Amino acid sequence: MTYETVLRSATKEVVIGHDRPFCLIGERINPTGRKIFQEQLRNGDLSAIERDVAAQVAGGADVLDVNMGVPLTDEADLLSRAIKLVQERTDLPICIDSSVIEALEAGLAAYQGRALVNSITAEDDRMEAVLPLVKKYDAAVIALPNDADEIPMESDKRLELVKKIVEVATKEYGIAIENILIDPLAMPIGADSSYVQTTLTTIRRIRDEFGLNMTCGASNVSFGMPGRHVLGAAFLPIAMAAGLTSAIMDTRTPEIVEAVKAADLLLGHDEWGSAWIAAHRAKLAAT
Amino acid sequence: MTYETVLRSATKEVVIGHDRPFCLIGERINPTGRKIFQEQLRNGDLSAIERDVAAQVAGGADVLDVNMGVPLTDEADLLSRAIKLVQERTDLPICIDSSVIEALEAGLAAYQGRALVNSITAEDDRMEAVLPLVKKYDAAVIALPNDADEIPMESDKRLELVKKIVEVATKEYGIAIENILIDPLAMPIGADSSYVQTTLTTIRRIRDEFGLNMTCGASNVSFGMPGRHVLGAAFLPIAMAAGLTSAIMDTRTPEIVEAVKAADLLLGHDEWGSAWIAAHRAKLAAT
Repeated sequence: MTYETVLRSATKEVVIGHDRPFCLIGERINPTGRKIFQEQLRNGDLSAIERDVAAQVAGGADVLDVNMGVPLTDEADLLSRAIKLVQERTDLPICIDSSVIEALEAGLAAYQGRALVNSITAEDDRMEAVLPLVKKYDAAVIALPNDADEIPMESDKRLELVKKIVEVATKEYGIAIENILIDPLAMPIGADSSYVQTTLTTIRRIRDEFGLNMTCGASNVSFGMPGRHVLGAAFLPIAMAAGLTSAIMDTRTPEIVEAVKAADLLLGHDEWGSAWIAAHRAKLAAT
Repeated sequence: MTYETVLRSATKEVVIGHDRPFCLIGERINPTGRKIFQEQLRNGDLSAIERDVAAQVAGGADVLDVNMGVPLTDEADLLSRAIKLVQERTDLPICIDSSVIEALEAGLAAYQGRALVNSITAEDDRMEAVLPLVKKYDAAVIALPNDADEIPMESDKRLELVKKIVEVATKEYGIAIENILIDPLAMPIGADSSYVQTTLTTIRRIRDEFGLNMTCGASNVSFGMPGRHVLGAAFLPIAMAAGLTSAIMDTRTPEIVEAVKAADLLLGHDEWGSAWIAAHRAKLAAT
């Protein structure tokens, strides 16, 4: 048995599930590492957000990750304004991304619909701080199976932490199990040749033992390696076959988006190839 | 437990195995559907073969499939001459590809090393005709789990036929089990959305239940669909993760070859990414 996670904006519903097309969470609405964008946001200029939203939507995003982590700003205020702006510009559901509890709460309060919260870990204090907000605002939540500062390198340990998260979230905070998305922790293949296999085993076991939906930072896998787009375009189809149901990625990379759509077709999530064929017709019409 | 298949030319060994980099069998040395090439071959002009060999080798082929099926020719004579020519031009092992028994025998007699024979089915008369040649010439053989004219659409039936083939080949003809490669039968996704899932299930079960090596015609999957290279580049990584250990393909498609090399890295068959990084350095140096 597997679960379906329903995200909503004010007017649109996106369902993430094991028998559904893969869900692309566009990740670019994020000032990390972007000096000019940070400076604009510090000065209250949110115009760059509109451009980023348009690019992620054009690239095929189903959900938008919005992160406003700018040092020396009132992140709660900034995030809530950004979310209102994004919701004016698109009807895609939002993944509210912050390590600051006040910012998550302000973002959730500003959001229209059922958001995805990014993220909790298996650490007690993080769960205690975030899960009541997830419950209060009827959101879904991404959970990383790591505790303290350590990322477990065996799938057994990751699965133990998934079990802990599911028990705490459902029993102590009354969160519906289908609203928990696990991040199986994709690690850079350049650091260790076995990391991706561990991630794939973790994905398979989360699907088979819990039936939960999953998402991960797809670009982590290729970090530090040449040919990153080719690696991303090979990784996601493999991970989808193992049970990954969504990924947080920059949808401005057509090679990777197309690989995901191809895998949807090959894995039987695009009946009769109608989406695949329609996308190719649109591409031909555009040229 | 899984097996390793060792193919050899006079001077080079290629090992196919579940813990090895994927084996690319270049398929272009084949006049099927090529009128000019057929005409040249009929006139005894084998020069186009040299060009095709060079292109497949440049594209990254590990083994070369050689097929000389030209109507109204002495295929046995043509195939044996082609094999001698290919072996003069490259040290890659050869996959001898014919439906004509006399041609297979002539090809095997002309070949220096341990060839791969393409192919048998589970049909008794085909096994009776080909397996003694495989044994006599110490070759390896590709076996398709279909009988009569029917391709079974359930993995259960395909696995039954694999079992039959393995029993007949090893017990009746004394062929070493590691010299049997199964073709899990990749069918066009455009014909039925579930075909690839059946192929993937078949691949997984052949690996888990028999440990045998496998190969398939990778381009079959995308037959009739737009975006064939993208589909091929998504299919092979998924199939490799399931246990496919080689494919017969046109290596002049760099998108698909690169996807295979990326999957080798991701699946732990390219330790430290040394082949991946070296390939990218070579690519940079060439531009």
